[in-house]
Amino acid sequence: MTNEHTHTSKQFDAELEALRARVLQMGGFVEQQITLAVEALSLSDLEMCSNIVANDHKDNAMEVGIDEDCSTIIARRQPAASDLRLIMMVVKTITDLERIGDEAAKIARMAKLINSVDRVQQPRYVEIRRMAGLAIEMLRKSLDCFARLDVTGSAEVVRTDQHVDDEFRAILRQLITFMMEDPRTISASIEILFIAKALERIGDHAKNISEYVIYMVKGKDVRHVSLEEIEREIMA
Amino acid sequence: MTNEHTHTSKQFDAELEALRARVLQMGGFVEQQITLAVEALSLSDLEMCSNIVANDHKDNAMEVGIDEDCSTIIARRQPAASDLRLIMMVVKTITDLERIGDEAAKIARMAKLINSVDRVQQPRYVEIRRMAGLAIEMLRKSLDCFARLDVTGSAEVVRTDQHVDDEFRAILRQLITFMMEDPRTISASIEILFIAKALERIGDHAKNISEYVIYMVKGKDVRHVSLEEIEREIMA
Repeated sequence: MTNEHTHTSKQFDAELEALRARVLQMGGFVEQQITLAVEALSLSDLEMCSNIVANDHKDNAMEVGIDEDCSTIIARRQPAASDLRLIMMVVKTITDLERIGDEAAKIARMAKLINSVDRVQQPRYVEIRRMAGLAIEMLRKSLDCFARLDVTGSAEVVRTDQHVDDEFRAILRQLITFMMEDPRTISASIEILFIAKALERIGDHAKNISEYVIYMVKGKDVRHVSLEEIEREIMA
Repeated sequence: MTNEHTHTSKQFDAELEALRARVLQMGGFVEQQITLAVEALSLSDLEMCSNIVANDHKDNAMEVGIDEDCSTIIARRQPAASDLRLIMMVVKTITDLERIGDEAAKIARMAKLINSVDRVQQPRYVEIRRMAGLAIEMLRKSLDCFARLDVTGSAEVVRTDQHVDDEFRAILRQLITFMMEDPRTISASIEILFIAKALERIGDHAKNISEYVIYMVKGKDVRHVSLEEIEREIMA
């Protein structure tokens, strides 16, 4: 191996590392957006809601920038199998992160709507906050596993998605009960339902990211296979 | 230019053409899945619903296969700027197509649920069918513009998404009225609301595909910019 080659390879490594760091930075940003959106909802803080919506363009710009970086690296480095796999998974991951950002903005818009109307009864957000906690935890863990290329942890994230879905169904049942008992709560309940739906989507996106990580490491596409198959694959 | 080069280039062209054809095939498949799902809903055909759900794995497999093709082409051909842009957009497009397939399966599952319960009143689906028609039209046109790299048509698709969103809001308002008037319709209304939401998502995905086409051709990222900016960009 020549010095030239080593040097180039080190530089390439640094580029891939920088790419990964940018993904994590974007992930941290959208995680913050969700956290703030749920806080703004709980606190009925309209200004906070507006700020979150106004900041949505930032993750859009991050996605576009990272996409460009990926293309530049591919064109310049002509990466081999495993490096190319990493880059392709970055391309997929940032699409999910950007859509998580969209969901956060959606929650903030909905929170604004809920709080701008005089309600018969201000809803409690215990369940929403618990569900948000789960979704945020999933996202954080999926990014953590992305950073460490942790396959076992990623499989755990995939598994957690079922809890988020269960939580969503529980909230849905509860809201239907509220609406039946007091039809005056229908509009507010529908808005809360959309917030729960956004959180459920965030869980789905975190799950996608974890599946990409498993693929990145194991080189086998685990998207669209059952959890049991994923676990068999990891044990192999 | 040597014969060898010409030959290689022709082969590469053929590979890109085949890639595009596979994307269109996948698009045709998910379009059919939506059409069937809305038909199954209207006809209360439970068996048809089950078939649609059972076929969902097909578009998943198509996505995985096309992803692999993209990686193979990149690794083997080391494509330059515009070809690489095309391939990266294929990678993004098929993610949206696969999620459209998911939404179609969701509609079928919801249709099954609605039809398996004795209803106070079987809902009419005029509005849902109209909204579905719009979403399917958007998808078809986005794929058509993808095939012909038609930027102007793509911008029209982006514009149509606003109609789908308007349609969704109209259905939502109508459902809230129904629920207020007769709380016994709440459960069924929520299910129809989820179907409308799935159709709205399908519109979003078609819009994404059209934005990728504009990017592919114009080389400027139009995702996340306003419609006015896109149109200025196209006129430029």
